[in-house]
Amino acid sequence: MGMKDAESTVSKLIEVALRRYAMIERGEKILIGVSGGKDSTCLARDLAVKRRWWEVPFEIEACFIASDLGQADDSWVRERMAEWDIPYARIEVPVLGRLKPGEKMSCYWCATQRRTELSLYARSKGFNKLALGHHMDDILETLLMNMLKKGEFATMPPVMAYDNYPLTVIRPLALCEERQIIACAESLRFSSHTCTCDFNVEGERKKTKRLIETMTNGSSHAKRNLFKSMRTIKSRYLA
Amino acid sequence: MGMKDAESTVSKLIEVALRRYAMIERGEKILIGVSGGKDSTCLARDLAVKRRWWEVPFEIEACFIASDLGQADDSWVRERMAEWDIPYARIEVPVLGRLKPGEKMSCYWCATQRRTELSLYARSKGFNKLALGHHMDDILETLLMNMLKKGEFATMPPVMAYDNYPLTVIRPLALCEERQIIACAESLRFSSHTCTCDFNVEGERKKTKRLIETMTNGSSHAKRNLFKSMRTIKSRYLA
Repeated sequence: MGMKDAESTVSKLIEVALRRYAMIERGEKILIGVSGGKDSTCLARDLAVKRRWWEVPFEIEACFIASDLGQADDSWVRERMAEWDIPYARIEVPVLGRLKPGEKMSCYWCATQRRTELSLYARSKGFNKLALGHHMDDILETLLMNMLKKGEFATMPPVMAYDNYPLTVIRPLALCEERQIIACAESLRFSSHTCTCDFNVEGERKKTKRLIETMTNGSSHAKRNLFKSMRTIKSRYLA
Repeated sequence: MGMKDAESTVSKLIEVALRRYAMIERGEKILIGVSGGKDSTCLARDLAVKRRWWEVPFEIEACFIASDLGQADDSWVRERMAEWDIPYARIEVPVLGRLKPGEKMSCYWCATQRRTELSLYARSKGFNKLALGHHMDDILETLLMNMLKKGEFATMPPVMAYDNYPLTVIRPLALCEERQIIACAESLRFSSHTCTCDFNVEGERKKTKRLIETMTNGSSHAKRNLFKSMRTIKSRYLA
Protein backbone atom coordinates (compact mmCIF):
# COMPACT_ATOMS: atom_id res chain seq x y z
CA MET A 1 0.00 0.00 0.00
CA GLY A 2 1.47 3.36 -1.01
CA MET A 3 1.62 6.30 1.34
CA LYS A 4 -1.30 8.07 -0.23
CA ASP A 5 -3.47 4.96 0.00
CA ALA A 6 -3.40 4.92 3.79
CA GLU A 7 -4.61 8.51 3.92
CA SER A 8 -7.32 8.01 1.37
CA THR A 9 -8.57 4.85 3.13
CA VAL A 10 -9.02 6.74 6.38
CA SER A 11 -10.49 9.74 4.57
CA LYS A 12 -13.03 7.53 2.79
CA LEU A 13 -14.02 5.66 5.96
CA ILE A 14 -14.53 8.98 7.74
CA GLU A 15 -16.69 10.12 4.85
CA VAL A 16 -18.80 6.95 5.09
CA ALA A 17 -19.21 7.45 8.84
CA LEU A 18 -20.10 11.14 8.48
CA ARG A 19 -22.83 10.20 6.00
CA ARG A 20 -24.12 6.97 7.55
CA TYR A 21 -24.54 8.54 10.97
CA ALA A 22 -25.46 12.04 9.68
CA MET A 23 -22.70 13.55 11.79
CA ILE A 24 -22.46 17.03 10.27
CA GLU A 25 -25.25 19.42 9.37
CA ARG A 26 -25.07 22.74 7.62
CA GLY A 27 -23.23 25.46 9.50
CA GLU A 28 -22.43 23.39 12.55
CA LYS A 29 -19.61 24.32 14.89
CA ILE A 30 -17.52 21.28 15.69
CA LEU A 31 -15.03 21.14 18.54
CA ILE A 32 -12.37 18.43 18.11
CA GLY A 33 -10.77 17.03 21.22
CA VAL A 34 -7.06 16.69 20.38
CA SER A 35 -4.43 14.98 22.51
CA GLY A 36 -1.44 14.99 20.18
CA GLY A 37 -2.00 11.26 19.67
CA LYS A 38 -2.31 9.65 16.24
CA ASP A 39 -6.09 9.26 16.37
CA SER A 40 -7.23 12.79 17.09
CA THR A 41 -4.44 14.24 14.93
CA CYS A 42 -5.58 12.18 11.92
CA LEU A 43 -9.15 13.20 12.66
CA ALA A 44 -8.34 16.92 12.90
CA ARG A 45 -6.32 16.87 9.68
CA ASP A 46 -9.03 15.02 7.77
CA LEU A 47 -11.79 17.36 8.94
CA ALA A 48 -9.58 20.31 7.96
CA VAL A 49 -9.36 18.87 4.44
CA LYS A 50 -13.06 17.99 4.23
CA ARG A 51 -13.96 21.48 5.41
CA ARG A 52 -12.73 22.71 2.01
CA TRP A 53 -15.00 20.55 -0.16
CA TRP A 54 -17.78 19.09 2.01
CA GLU A 55 -21.22 19.82 0.57
CA VAL A 56 -22.38 21.86 3.55
CA PRO A 57 -20.18 24.41 5.31
CA PHE A 58 -19.04 23.69 8.87
CA GLU A 59 -16.53 25.17 11.30
CA ILE A 60 -13.93 23.34 13.32
CA GLU A 61 -11.78 24.19 16.31
CA ALA A 62 -9.41 22.01 18.30
CA CYS A 63 -9.21 21.83 22.06
CA PHE A 64 -6.31 20.29 23.98
CA ILE A 65 -6.78 19.25 27.60
CA ALA A 66 -3.55 19.66 29.53
CA SER A 67 -3.48 17.73 32.77
CA ASP A 68 -1.21 17.13 35.72
CA LEU A 69 -0.86 13.54 34.50
CA GLY A 70 1.98 14.47 32.21
CA GLN A 71 0.14 15.57 29.10
CA ALA A 72 1.14 19.20 29.28
CA ASP A 73 3.44 19.85 26.31
CA ASP A 74 1.22 20.75 23.41
CA SER A 75 3.75 22.54 21.23
CA TRP A 76 3.68 19.90 18.49
CA VAL A 77 -0.08 19.62 18.25
CA ARG A 78 -0.46 23.40 18.47
CA GLU A 79 1.85 23.75 15.44
CA ARG A 80 -0.08 21.16 13.45
CA MET A 81 -3.36 22.93 14.11
CA ALA A 82 -1.84 26.24 13.02
CA GLU A 83 -0.47 24.54 9.87
CA TRP A 84 -3.93 23.19 9.05
CA ASP A 85 -5.66 26.46 9.90
CA ILE A 86 -7.62 25.03 12.81
CA PRO A 87 -8.30 27.46 15.67
CA TYR A 88 -6.85 26.02 18.82
CA ALA A 89 -7.53 26.24 22.55
CA ARG A 90 -5.72 24.76 25.52
CA ILE A 91 -7.43 24.04 28.82
CA GLU A 92 -5.77 23.03 32.07
CA VAL A 93 -7.44 20.26 34.06
CA PRO A 94 -5.85 19.11 37.32
CA VAL A 95 -7.01 15.50 36.98
CA LEU A 96 -4.88 14.32 39.91
CA GLY A 97 -5.49 17.53 41.84
CA ARG A 98 -9.24 16.99 41.72
CA LEU A 99 -9.05 13.59 43.39
CA LYS A 100 -10.55 13.72 46.84
CA PRO A 101 -8.50 12.27 49.71
CA GLY A 102 -8.59 8.47 49.57
CA GLU A 103 -9.77 8.33 45.95
CA LYS A 104 -7.63 6.38 43.52
CA MET A 105 -6.58 7.59 40.10
CA SER A 106 -8.24 5.65 37.26
CA CYS A 107 -8.68 5.91 33.51
CA TYR A 108 -12.38 6.34 34.13
CA TRP A 109 -11.80 9.32 36.43
CA CYS A 110 -9.37 11.00 34.04
CA ALA A 111 -11.62 10.47 31.01
CA THR A 112 -14.63 11.84 32.87
CA GLN A 113 -12.77 14.95 34.00
CA ARG A 114 -11.43 15.65 30.54
CA ARG A 115 -14.76 15.00 28.86
CA THR A 116 -16.54 17.29 31.29
CA GLU A 117 -14.10 20.13 30.56
CA LEU A 118 -14.40 19.59 26.82
CA SER A 119 -18.16 19.69 26.94
CA LEU A 120 -18.19 22.76 29.23
CA TYR A 121 -15.85 24.57 26.85
CA ALA A 122 -17.87 23.47 23.81
CA ARG A 123 -21.13 24.69 25.29
CA SER A 124 -19.65 27.98 26.50
CA LYS A 125 -18.36 28.72 23.00
CA GLY A 126 -21.50 27.71 21.11
CA PHE A 127 -20.28 24.44 19.60
CA ASN A 128 -23.02 21.91 18.98
CA LYS A 129 -20.79 18.95 18.08
CA LEU A 130 -17.85 17.48 19.98
CA ALA A 131 -15.73 15.25 17.73
CA LEU A 132 -13.62 12.61 19.48
CA GLY A 133 -10.88 10.42 18.02
CA HIS A 134 -12.17 7.00 19.09
CA HIS A 135 -11.82 4.41 16.34
CA MET A 136 -13.39 1.01 15.66
CA ASP A 137 -10.95 -0.86 17.90
CA ASP A 138 -11.73 1.47 20.82
CA ILE A 139 -15.43 0.95 20.23
CA LEU A 140 -15.08 -2.84 20.07
CA GLU A 141 -12.88 -2.92 23.18
CA THR A 142 -15.50 -0.97 25.10
CA LEU A 143 -18.23 -3.27 23.76
CA LEU A 144 -16.36 -6.36 24.98
CA MET A 145 -15.50 -4.81 28.34
CA ASN A 146 -19.12 -3.81 28.90
CA MET A 147 -20.30 -7.32 28.01
CA LEU A 148 -17.75 -9.05 30.25
CA LYS A 149 -17.62 -6.63 33.18
CA LYS A 150 -21.07 -5.08 33.25
CA GLY A 151 -23.30 -7.57 31.45
CA GLU A 152 -24.39 -4.90 28.99
CA PHE A 153 -24.45 -4.80 25.21
CA ALA A 154 -23.33 -1.19 24.93
CA THR A 155 -20.36 0.85 23.81
CA MET A 156 -19.25 4.36 22.82
CA PRO A 157 -21.64 5.05 19.93
CA PRO A 158 -20.64 6.94 16.77
CA VAL A 159 -23.21 9.62 17.64
CA MET A 160 -24.52 10.43 21.07
CA ALA A 161 -26.58 13.48 21.97
CA TYR A 162 -26.34 14.74 25.53
CA ASP A 163 -29.71 14.73 27.25
CA ASN A 164 -29.37 18.01 29.11
CA TYR A 165 -27.80 20.40 26.63
CA PRO A 166 -27.58 20.94 22.89
CA LEU A 167 -24.30 19.12 22.35
CA THR A 168 -23.74 15.88 20.46
CA VAL A 169 -20.61 13.74 20.61
CA ILE A 170 -19.54 12.37 17.23
CA ARG A 171 -16.85 9.79 16.51
CA PRO A 172 -15.95 10.13 12.81
CA LEU A 173 -13.25 7.42 13.10
CA ALA A 174 -15.85 4.82 14.15
CA LEU A 175 -15.39 2.84 10.93
CA CYS A 176 -11.57 3.05 10.89
CA GLU A 177 -9.53 0.24 12.35
CA GLU A 178 -6.59 1.30 14.47
CA ARG A 179 -4.15 -0.27 12.02
CA GLN A 180 -5.54 1.95 9.27
CA ILE A 181 -5.03 5.04 11.40
CA ILE A 182 -1.51 3.97 12.28
CA ALA A 183 -0.76 3.58 8.56
CA CYS A 184 -2.25 7.01 7.89
CA ALA A 185 -0.21 8.61 10.70
CA GLU A 186 2.96 6.97 9.36
CA SER A 187 2.16 8.18 5.87
CA LEU A 188 1.74 11.72 7.23
CA ARG A 189 4.98 11.31 9.18
CA PHE A 190 3.60 12.26 12.54
CA SER A 191 3.49 8.85 14.14
CA SER A 192 6.73 9.53 16.00
CA HIS A 193 5.10 12.48 17.74
CA THR A 194 2.17 10.57 19.12
CA CYS A 195 2.08 10.96 22.82
CA THR A 196 -0.23 8.92 24.96
CA CYS A 197 -0.67 8.60 28.65
CA ASP A 198 1.57 6.09 30.40
CA PHE A 199 -0.74 5.56 33.36
CA ASN A 200 -2.10 2.02 33.46
CA VAL A 201 -0.63 1.05 30.08
CA GLU A 202 -1.16 -2.62 30.91
CA GLY A 203 -4.72 -2.11 32.00
CA GLU A 204 -8.02 -3.67 31.10
CA ARG A 205 -8.16 -1.98 27.72
CA LYS A 206 -4.80 -3.36 26.62
CA LYS A 207 -5.89 -6.83 27.68
CA THR A 208 -9.13 -6.41 25.78
CA LYS A 209 -7.23 -5.22 22.72
CA ARG A 210 -5.24 -8.47 22.74
CA LEU A 211 -8.44 -10.42 23.35
CA ILE A 212 -10.00 -8.94 20.22
CA GLU A 213 -6.89 -9.86 18.24
CA THR A 214 -7.28 -13.43 19.51
CA MET A 215 -11.01 -13.48 18.77
CA THR A 216 -10.63 -12.17 15.25
CA ASN A 217 -7.28 -13.82 14.56
CA GLY A 218 -6.28 -10.42 13.17
CA SER A 219 -8.99 -10.59 10.50
CA SER A 220 -10.55 -7.28 9.48
CA HIS A 221 -13.60 -9.17 8.30
CA ALA A 222 -14.18 -10.70 11.75
CA LYS A 223 -13.62 -7.31 13.39
CA ARG A 224 -16.12 -5.66 11.09
CA ASN A 225 -18.55 -8.50 11.81
CA LEU A 226 -18.27 -7.75 15.53
CA PHE A 227 -19.05 -4.12 14.74
CA LYS A 228 -21.94 -5.09 12.48
CA SER A 229 -23.47 -7.28 15.20
CA MET A 230 -24.37 -4.05 17.03
CA ARG A 231 -26.66 -3.13 14.15
CA THR A 232 -28.00 -6.65 13.55
CA ILE A 233 -29.65 -7.57 16.82
CA LYS A 234 -32.02 -10.51 16.42
CA SER A 235 -34.12 -10.08 19.51
CA ARG A 236 -36.03 -13.32 18.90
CA TYR A 237 -32.76 -15.21 19.03
CA LEU A 238 -31.45 -13.93 22.34
CA ALA A 239 -31.73 -15.14 25.90
CA MET B 1 -18.71 -29.56 46.75
CA GLY B 2 -20.47 -32.77 47.78
CA MET B 3 -22.09 -35.04 45.25
CA LYS B 4 -25.60 -33.95 46.04
CA ASP B 5 -24.65 -30.28 45.66
CA ALA B 6 -23.83 -30.65 41.98
CA GLU B 7 -27.22 -32.20 41.31
CA SER B 8 -29.11 -29.62 43.33
CA THR B 9 -27.25 -26.75 41.63
CA VAL B 10 -28.30 -27.97 38.20
CA SER B 11 -31.81 -28.74 39.42
CA LYS B 12 -32.17 -25.24 40.86
CA LEU B 13 -30.82 -23.54 37.72
CA ILE B 14 -33.24 -25.56 35.59
CA GLU B 15 -36.05 -24.47 37.89
CA VAL B 16 -35.03 -20.81 37.52
CA ALA B 17 -34.94 -21.17 33.72
CA LEU B 18 -38.32 -22.96 33.59
CA ARG B 19 -39.88 -20.11 35.55
CA ARG B 20 -38.01 -17.14 34.08
CA TYR B 21 -38.77 -18.17 30.52
CA ALA B 22 -42.20 -19.73 31.29
CA MET B 23 -41.10 -22.96 29.64
CA ILE B 24 -43.81 -25.35 30.87
CA GLU B 25 -47.53 -24.81 30.98
CA ARG B 26 -50.24 -27.03 32.46
CA GLY B 27 -50.66 -30.38 30.75
CA GLU B 28 -48.02 -29.84 28.11
CA LYS B 29 -46.40 -32.75 26.31
CA ILE B 30 -42.65 -32.30 26.18
CA LEU B 31 -40.39 -34.31 23.91
CA ILE B 32 -36.77 -34.40 25.08
CA GLY B 33 -34.07 -34.90 22.47
CA VAL B 34 -31.58 -37.34 24.05
CA SER B 35 -28.20 -38.32 22.65
CA GLY B 36 -26.73 -40.34 25.50
CA GLY B 37 -24.46 -37.36 26.21
CA LYS B 38 -24.14 -35.76 29.64
CA ASP B 39 -26.28 -32.73 28.81
CA SER B 40 -29.48 -34.31 27.57
CA THR B 41 -29.15 -37.15 30.10
CA CYS B 42 -28.96 -34.66 33.00
CA LEU B 43 -31.88 -32.78 31.48
CA ALA B 44 -34.06 -35.89 31.09
CA ARG B 45 -33.34 -37.06 34.62
CA ASP B 46 -34.11 -33.67 36.11
CA LEU B 47 -37.39 -33.30 34.24
CA ALA B 48 -38.32 -36.82 35.37
CA VAL B 49 -37.80 -35.70 38.98
CA LYS B 50 -39.59 -32.37 38.54
CA ARG B 51 -42.55 -34.17 36.90
CA ARG B 52 -43.31 -35.59 40.37
CA TRP B 53 -43.60 -32.28 42.23
CA TRP B 54 -43.92 -29.44 39.69
CA GLU B 55 -46.97 -27.28 40.35
CA VAL B 56 -48.63 -28.06 37.03
CA PRO B 57 -48.73 -31.55 35.53
CA PHE B 58 -46.76 -32.22 32.34
CA GLU B 59 -45.75 -35.26 30.32
CA ILE B 60 -42.30 -36.14 29.03
CA GLU B 61 -40.96 -38.55 26.46
CA ALA B 62 -37.43 -39.02 25.16
CA CYS B 63 -36.42 -39.36 21.54
CA PHE B 64 -33.04 -40.63 20.36
CA ILE B 65 -31.87 -39.91 16.82
CA ALA B 66 -29.70 -42.73 15.53
CA SER B 67 -27.58 -41.77 12.57
CA ASP B 68 -25.10 -43.30 10.19
CA LEU B 69 -22.46 -41.04 11.75
CA GLY B 70 -21.76 -43.54 14.48
CA GLN B 71 -24.37 -42.65 17.07
CA ALA B 72 -26.37 -45.85 16.77
CA ASP B 73 -25.92 -47.71 20.05
CA ASP B 74 -28.61 -46.43 22.37
CA SER B 75 -28.70 -49.32 24.85
CA TRP B 76 -27.33 -47.23 27.73
CA VAL B 77 -29.61 -44.25 27.24
CA ARG B 78 -32.60 -46.55 26.65
CA GLU B 79 -31.96 -48.20 30.01
CA ARG B 80 -31.70 -44.86 31.81
CA MET B 81 -35.01 -43.69 30.36
CA ALA B 82 -36.66 -46.96 31.45
CA GLU B 83 -35.15 -46.53 34.93
CA TRP B 84 -36.55 -43.00 35.18
CA ASP B 85 -39.91 -44.00 33.74
CA ILE B 86 -39.57 -41.86 30.62
CA PRO B 87 -41.25 -43.26 27.49
CA TYR B 88 -38.64 -43.64 24.79
CA ALA B 89 -38.49 -43.62 21.01
CA ARG B 90 -35.65 -44.21 18.59
CA ILE B 91 -35.58 -42.75 15.10
CA GLU B 92 -33.12 -43.59 12.34
CA VAL B 93 -31.78 -40.67 10.32
CA PRO B 94 -29.26 -41.35 7.54
CA VAL B 95 -27.41 -38.06 7.94
CA LEU B 96 -24.61 -39.09 5.61
CA GLY B 97 -26.99 -40.97 3.32
CA ARG B 98 -29.07 -37.85 2.75
CA LEU B 99 -26.13 -35.84 1.46
CA LYS B 100 -26.54 -35.11 -2.23
CA PRO B 101 -23.60 -35.89 -4.52
CA GLY B 102 -20.90 -33.26 -4.08
CA GLU B 103 -22.24 -31.97 -0.76
CA LYS B 104 -19.87 -32.03 2.20
CA MET B 105 -20.74 -33.34 5.63
CA SER B 106 -20.93 -30.57 8.24
CA CYS B 107 -22.12 -30.08 11.80
CA TYR B 108 -24.71 -27.70 10.45
CA TRP B 109 -26.10 -30.33 8.06
CA CYS B 110 -26.22 -33.03 10.72
CA ALA B 111 -27.87 -30.75 13.29
CA THR B 112 -30.47 -29.63 10.76
CA GLN B 113 -31.34 -33.19 9.76
CA ARG B 114 -31.66 -34.33 13.36
CA ARG B 115 -33.66 -31.28 14.40
CA THR B 116 -36.03 -31.73 11.48
CA GLU B 117 -36.69 -35.36 12.42
CA LEU B 118 -37.20 -34.45 16.07
CA SER B 119 -39.70 -31.77 15.19
CA LEU B 120 -41.53 -34.01 12.69
CA TYR B 121 -41.82 -36.74 15.31
CA ALA B 122 -42.91 -34.26 17.99
CA ARG B 123 -45.63 -32.79 15.78
CA SER B 124 -46.86 -36.20 14.63
CA LYS B 125 -47.24 -37.33 18.25
CA GLY B 126 -48.91 -34.19 19.56
CA PHE B 127 -46.00 -32.75 21.54
CA ASN B 128 -46.06 -28.98 21.85
CA LYS B 129 -42.61 -28.56 23.41
CA LEU B 130 -39.26 -29.90 22.26
CA ALA B 131 -36.67 -29.78 25.06
CA LEU B 132 -33.02 -29.69 24.00
CA GLY B 133 -29.93 -30.10 26.14
CA HIS B 134 -28.03 -26.97 25.16
CA HIS B 135 -26.44 -25.23 28.13
CA MET B 136 -25.11 -21.73 28.77
CA ASP B 137 -21.70 -22.47 27.23
CA ASP B 138 -23.35 -23.73 24.03
CA ILE B 139 -25.48 -20.60 23.90
CA LEU B 140 -22.50 -18.29 24.46
CA GLU B 141 -20.41 -20.14 21.86
CA THR B 142 -23.17 -19.68 19.30
CA LEU B 143 -23.50 -16.01 20.28
CA LEU B 144 -19.78 -15.42 19.72
CA MET B 145 -19.71 -17.39 16.47
CA ASN B 146 -22.68 -15.44 15.13
CA MET B 147 -21.03 -12.15 16.07
CA LEU B 148 -17.67 -13.05 14.54
CA LYS B 149 -18.80 -15.04 11.49
CA LYS B 150 -22.17 -13.54 10.62
CA GLY B 151 -22.11 -10.08 12.15
CA GLU B 152 -25.27 -10.84 14.11
CA PHE B 153 -26.12 -10.53 17.78
CA ALA B 154 -28.12 -13.76 17.95
CA THR B 155 -27.91 -17.21 19.45
CA MET B 156 -29.96 -20.31 20.32
CA PRO B 157 -32.57 -18.76 22.61
CA PRO B 158 -33.93 -20.47 25.75
CA VAL B 159 -37.40 -20.46 24.17
CA MET B 160 -38.17 -20.35 20.48
CA ALA B 161 -41.58 -20.96 18.95
CA TYR B 162 -41.63 -22.30 15.41
CA ASP B 163 -43.48 -19.97 13.08
CA ASN B 164 -45.30 -22.57 11.04
CA TYR B 165 -46.55 -25.13 13.54
CA PRO B 166 -47.53 -25.33 17.20
CA LEU B 167 -44.18 -26.46 18.53
CA THR B 168 -41.79 -24.53 20.76
CA VAL B 169 -38.16 -25.41 21.42
CA ILE B 170 -37.13 -24.98 25.05
CA ARG B 171 -33.61 -25.16 26.51
CA PRO B 172 -34.02 -25.72 30.25
CA LEU B 173 -30.22 -25.93 30.75
CA ALA B 174 -29.78 -22.36 29.44
CA LEU B 175 -28.65 -21.07 32.84
CA CYS B 176 -26.35 -24.02 33.61
CA GLU B 177 -22.67 -23.77 32.85
CA GLU B 178 -21.13 -26.83 31.27
CA ARG B 179 -18.86 -27.37 34.28
CA GLN B 180 -21.94 -27.58 36.49
CA ILE B 181 -23.46 -30.21 34.24
CA ILE B 182 -20.22 -32.17 34.17
CA ALA B 183 -20.18 -32.12 37.98
CA CYS B 184 -23.79 -33.27 38.03
CA ALA B 185 -23.09 -36.10 35.57
CA GLU B 186 -20.10 -37.21 37.65
CA SER B 187 -22.20 -37.12 40.78
CA LEU B 188 -24.80 -39.31 39.07
CA ARG B 189 -22.02 -41.62 37.87
CA PHE B 190 -22.96 -41.50 34.23
CA SER B 191 -20.21 -39.26 32.94
CA SER B 192 -18.23 -42.26 31.67
CA HIS B 193 -21.13 -43.17 29.40
CA THR B 194 -21.35 -39.84 27.65
CA CYS B 195 -21.00 -40.36 23.97
CA THR B 196 -20.55 -37.48 21.61
CA CYS B 197 -19.89 -37.28 17.94
CA ASP B 198 -16.24 -37.40 16.88
CA PHE B 199 -16.77 -35.64 13.57
CA ASN B 200 -15.03 -32.29 13.51
CA VAL B 201 -14.03 -32.41 17.20
CA GLU B 202 -11.49 -29.65 16.60
CA GLY B 203 -13.97 -27.47 14.81
CA GLU B 204 -15.13 -23.91 15.16
CA ARG B 205 -17.14 -24.65 18.29
CA LYS B 206 -14.18 -26.08 20.15
CA LYS B 207 -12.12 -23.04 19.19
CA THR B 208 -14.91 -20.78 20.37
CA LYS B 209 -15.15 -22.70 23.64
CA ARG B 210 -11.46 -21.99 24.29
CA LEU B 211 -11.96 -18.38 23.24
CA ILE B 212 -14.69 -17.95 25.85
CA GLU B 213 -12.39 -19.45 28.50
CA THR B 214 -9.77 -16.87 27.48
CA MET B 215 -12.29 -14.04 27.47
CA THR B 216 -13.71 -14.89 30.87
CA ASN B 217 -10.45 -16.18 32.36
CA GLY B 218 -12.58 -19.06 33.62
CA SER B 219 -14.74 -16.73 35.70
CA SER B 220 -18.39 -17.71 36.08
CA HIS B 221 -19.20 -14.10 36.80
CA ALA B 222 -17.78 -12.95 33.46
CA LYS B 223 -19.59 -15.78 31.66
CA ARG B 224 -22.88 -14.84 33.27
CA ASN B 225 -22.21 -11.20 32.34
CA LEU B 226 -21.86 -12.25 28.69
CA PHE B 227 -25.18 -14.04 29.00
CA LYS B 228 -26.78 -11.06 30.74
CA SER B 229 -25.64 -8.71 27.97
CA MET B 230 -28.24 -10.37 25.73
CA ARG B 231 -30.97 -9.03 28.01
CA THR B 232 -29.36 -5.65 28.64
CA ILE B 233 -29.11 -4.10 25.20
CA LYS B 234 -28.55 -0.34 25.40
CA SER B 235 -29.62 0.63 21.92
CA ARG B 236 -28.60 4.28 22.43
CA TYR B 237 -25.05 3.11 23.09
CA LEU B 238 -24.50 1.01 20.02
CA ALA B 239 -23.10 1.70 16.59
